Amino acid sequence: MTTHFERPVRIRFSHCDPAGIVFFPQYLVMTNALVEDWFNEGLHVDYAQMIGQRRLGLPIVKLDCEFSRPSQMGETIMLTLTVAAIGRRSITIDILGHCNGEARFRAKQVLVTTSLESGRSIDIPTDIAGSLAKFAPQPELSEAQRT
Amino acid sequence: MTTHFERPVRIRFSHCDPAGIVFFPQYLVMTNALVEDWFNEGLHVDYAQMIGQRRLGLPIVKLDCEFSRPSQMGETIMLTLTVAAIGRRSITIDILGHCNGEARFRAKQVLVTTSLESGRSIDIPTDIAGSLAKFAPQPELSEAQRT
Amino acid sequence: MTTHFERPVRIRFSHCDPAGIVFFPQYLVMTNALVEDWFNEGLHVDYAQMIGQRRLGLPIVKLDCEFSRPSQMGETIMLTLTVAAIGRRSITIDILGHCNGEARFRAKQVLVTTSLESGRSIDIPTDIAGSLAKFAPQPELSEAQRT
Amino acid sequence: MTTHFERPVRIRFSHCDPAGIVFFPQYLVMTNALVEDWFNEGLHVDYAQMIGQRRLGLPIVKLDCEFSRPSQMGETIMLTLTVAAIGRRSITIDILGHCNGEARFRAKQVLVTTSLESGRSIDIPTDIAGSLAKFAPQPELSEAQRT
Repeated sequence: MTTHFERPVRIRFSHCDPAGIVFFPQYLVMTNALVEDWFNEGLHVDYAQMIGQRRLGLPIVKLDCEFSRPSQMGETIMLTLTVAAIGRRSITIDILGHCNGEARFRAKQVLVTTSLESGRSIDIPTDIAGSLAKFAPQPELSEAQRT
Repeated sequence: MTTHFERPVRIRFSHCDPAGIVFFPQYLVMTNALVEDWFNEGLHVDYAQMIGQRRLGLPIVKLDCEFSRPSQMGETIMLTLTVAAIGRRSITIDILGHCNGEARFRAKQVLVTTSLESGRSIDIPTDIAGSLAKFAPQPELSEAQRT
Repeated sequence: MTTHFERPVRIRFSHCDPAGIVFFPQYLVMTNALVEDWFNEGLHVDYAQMIGQRRLGLPIVKLDCEFSRPSQMGETIMLTLTVAAIGRRSITIDILGHCNGEARFRAKQVLVTTSLESGRSIDIPTDIAGSLAKFAPQPELSEAQRT
Repeated sequence: MTTHFERPVRIRFSHCDPAGIVFFPQYLVMTNALVEDWFNEGLHVDYAQMIGQRRLGLPIVKLDCEFSRPSQMGETIMLTLTVAAIGRRSITIDILGHCNGEARFRAKQVLVTTSLESGRSIDIPTDIAGSLAKFAPQPELSEAQRT
């Protein structure tokens, strides 16, 4: 059974647009923070140290989103992350934003482990690969989806 | 032949992350501004008045992006918008961000004409549909892609 | 003795600039969220409802900040809010951002209760004035500073 | 006579809050871009190269703002920058945001030339000091205000 990671986020004044609902790029700022929390608290990899000292980045190369229902200021949205695929140099995650059982948005993101010195992709380091195992999708699927 | 709309954008300090490159949600703030400019200057529909007085919104329901190469502070990126499909209540646009002939990112966005009073989708108003015609893809294609 | 309100905030990738430290406008997004939390949890006034249904806004008219030391990604900054003065139509607050006993920034903000219908300042409503009393500075001071 | 530098900025959907007016931290993102433009086009100092290659930063240490009138989506605000004082390691600038002769906000900012390697303030480099001379306030004033 696949493990997931989730965190709530309160929709704030600063997230909202003149229509009074979340301005969609703000959802992606939220999912970026979710990935940070997942690394820190789910994978037990210090995200700030990974970027700042280890110089390992996690740029996004592919993003597919659906925005099904708007979110209003004051609501608390639950963000749920699952891992769809683990490649040699990439991690594919699915994020669902939902509130009271209603889906608000879905985002599929492909993140690539990258050296911030060279700007080139590198293999997922062994320690991070080890932590990821707990969140890995069923082996037969991840094998087929390896990139 | 399909008409396109394009505008340059300079990559600024405030767009960039600790890795010194554009933080990807900022690209989507830029594409939102491009759509504004397209309405104002390409379609000759006053965007602020459309939102504020006419109460017609243009929320995004689907977004697919590829980020192929990072962009650095100080670069000027050209954003080129083409219309992929025009539906009864939706507009599908393709946006390419490029610099010196190199693609940086692509975004396909489905926008839905929506009443900001009821929160429900509505038909594209006649005047806007008229302005859109100039940017319409080839008829046989747009017919097949109507939603 | 004056009561204060405080909340921690983790410095995230999205808050930081190419120099790897907090981009200063992000501090003001944080203080805006702090004021929201203070209304919701300190004053027990529903902020989203106040803006959205009651149509009472709280625009800032004056802001004075000092930025004494930079904050790094991964740090947790404590934001401490105290009330400096309560006027008939304004609230003056002091916010200190600090980490491990070191001040990072201070912000003094004058907020004015405003009708979002008319755009004009209005007296602080009685219920909010009542909640504010608990945070009021010493009477002799607040009297002198009334605006 | 003191020289000034100015640039227009269009108020966009993404700058505005649920009250339909500029969210105040966005003004500071705009003034940051103005300082970039001033360096690039007014002082003829390449800002991106200054930060990225030369590793010279310009953090803000003091900020005083007044927000006198709200700005609406679709408006074009003129931002006018003048130099209030030039110190050995600091530049004090005044920025006025105005529209059709009406002041919207004022910001006084003290920026300090800083090594991004050491994080410490350094003297304004000679070439930049030379470019700044053109914008210097009257000598007797700047002498008194040196920091």
